[in-house]
Amino acid sequence: MTEPKDFSLSCPVPAGDGGQILMAHGGGGKVMADLIEKVFMPAFDSAALRERHDASVVTVEGTRLAFTTDSFVVHPLFFPGGDIGSLAVNGTVNDLAMAGAKPMFLSAGFILEEGLPIETLSRVAASMGAAAKAAGVQFVTGDTKVVDRGKGDGVYVNTAGIGLVEGSVDVAPRRVRPGDAVIVSGDLGRHGMAVMALRESLEFQSAIESDCAPLWTPVEALLKGGIDIHCLRDLTRGGLSAALNEIAAAAKVNVRVEEAAIPVREDVRAACEILGLDPLYAANEGRFVAFVPKVQAEKAVAILRAQPVSQGACRIGEISDTPGSFVTLRTALGADRALDLLSGEQMPRIC
Amino acid sequence: MTEPKDFSLSCPVPAGDGGQILMAHGGGGKVMADLIEKVFMPAFDSAALRERHDASVVTVEGTRLAFTTDSFVVHPLFFPGGDIGSLAVNGTVNDLAMAGAKPMFLSAGFILEEGLPIETLSRVAASMGAAAKAAGVQFVTGDTKVVDRGKGDGVYVNTAGIGLVEGSVDVAPRRVRPGDAVIVSGDLGRHGMAVMALRESLEFQSAIESDCAPLWTPVEALLKGGIDIHCLRDLTRGGLSAALNEIAAAAKVNVRVEEAAIPVREDVRAACEILGLDPLYAANEGRFVAFVPKVQAEKAVAILRAQPVSQGACRIGEISDTPGSFVTLRTALGADRALDLLSGEQMPRIC
Repeated sequence: MTEPKDFSLSCPVPAGDGGQILMAHGGGGKVMADLIEKVFMPAFDSAALRERHDASVVTVEGTRLAFTTDSFVVHPLFFPGGDIGSLAVNGTVNDLAMAGAKPMFLSAGFILEEGLPIETLSRVAASMGAAAKAAGVQFVTGDTKVVDRGKGDGVYVNTAGIGLVEGSVDVAPRRVRPGDAVIVSGDLGRHGMAVMALRESLEFQSAIESDCAPLWTPVEALLKGGIDIHCLRDLTRGGLSAALNEIAAAAKVNVRVEEAAIPVREDVRAACEILGLDPLYAANEGRFVAFVPKVQAEKAVAILRAQPVSQGACRIGEISDTPGSFVTLRTALGADRALDLLSGEQMPRIC
Repeated sequence: MTEPKDFSLSCPVPAGDGGQILMAHGGGGKVMADLIEKVFMPAFDSAALRERHDASVVTVEGTRLAFTTDSFVVHPLFFPGGDIGSLAVNGTVNDLAMAGAKPMFLSAGFILEEGLPIETLSRVAASMGAAAKAAGVQFVTGDTKVVDRGKGDGVYVNTAGIGLVEGSVDVAPRRVRPGDAVIVSGDLGRHGMAVMALRESLEFQSAIESDCAPLWTPVEALLKGGIDIHCLRDLTRGGLSAALNEIAAAAKVNVRVEEAAIPVREDVRAACEILGLDPLYAANEGRFVAFVPKVQAEKAVAILRAQPVSQGACRIGEISDTPGSFVTLRTALGADRALDLLSGEQMPRIC
């Protein structure tokens, strides 16, 4: 295809190659995966990146550290159940936890737009401080940049984090294998619907609040309970569907899940229907999927249910014995359908 | 003072408290220091932050790690001698080196504006990969977000980095003491003038190129040469003046420097004069100041001059015996004047 030469032309269909950056490139779907594969991997290739993990695990003087980063551009900055500050802390804390690492230290990088009320920044900073305290991590370094009016959107936050991988813990996509049980830690879709309902000015009888929360406590409980966790992934951009597809591709396995077993609250389901969205693709900020040996599945669910943040944990499926890299959903009606990765995204700037 | 209620009003004088974010809040001067003190420190307070260091040093399982982050919003993205990609690598590598740490691992966070040509992103990524290789570090984790047209400026990059502090190395502002010699690693002002000359479409007989470069090699040479480095700081936003003032404040010492001893290239001095700027406040991306015991000063300068990146090293002053927290410049005419921190900045979006 020929590339539009003029920036004022918009391109409604995600361009597979060349061309311009589209909102879809930030959506956690196929187009973003393509960008990573074609632009970033050739430039940055390292063994750690090839693990395709939320956080990398590196070894320094014999100590195994998890290291991760995320930028946050959520719009609006404040929403029911959280804000860009709590999101920026929990997002990075959770990526560390998903590598089986105890979160320890965070950095904070701010890109502020000229004209931002300092009071807004103070609210964001206070929220970050409170979230860090709740998650048991410390901010130890930071940076602030200011860009001209119209070159930002109030405040963008980047956090990076360091965690400690203790003992022989080895949580990674490559460890997922046929027979593993697939467990979700609670009901899905709340973060996405909380932000979208606010953006679309939808009012429900009871407000849907984001599930934004730190997830190290339930992971630590699983590890202490002797569960041989094969892999974990938090269900952020692209939701459950993106997470399962990423793991299926990285571990080269087929994942089968049961629609009827996947917990979604009634008000979240209703909001999804009104907005034409699918809760299985909606972002969560306090939910994860765990892959554990089948024989430990019941015990793992019981351990998770004993923790407030994961009290809604459910077993939703398994890794099948057949070779492949697909995700199959058995619908409530008993039919099988592919649960595919979207091209782009349902919800832009959700985190 | 009353705050302007309307975003379209601009405020020519930096507001000391309350109010809105101004370009000056990102400038490395007094206004930024004030923002850190009033907004970030109360929210994020930690022992590591109170060290007021470019990178924090934290201990994990007995291993001392340096950890740092920087966001990069330089405009334009490409300039003589570098680009936002090489800047993002060397900026973070150098903050680690300034803590006496061997740089090891980097993260990369991108905030892309819808409509950015993918070719531009590829050039930035390739530059980051090449700079990482040259600095001996690995990218191990990353993140990409996309924001709507008019909510960014092509590409903003955040990098965070982890380095290893070996043996008994202890490089920190609190170690600076009366009698220390002050050494700069080379001529000043090139990065700032390279970017500003491009922005102002100034043409000189020979283009001024940014000094952007990794600085671990000369620091390692000093350490291996047995120099008891008390403190290091790279001369980025706010230049030599900001670095000396920050150290004077953090270590509670008076710094005295000699204008005639400070190396500035003739073309850089000429560019500064045309633009009404002062090379002592101009940003550098491959220069640092070292504080070492007076008895080791000559040896330290000799070690630095043996490294290509610091071959222009010079002793420029000392920490005086009188108590205080000031920086004094002895001018070429023999008069003493305060080398103060600017309120805001000479050059917005320089890094």
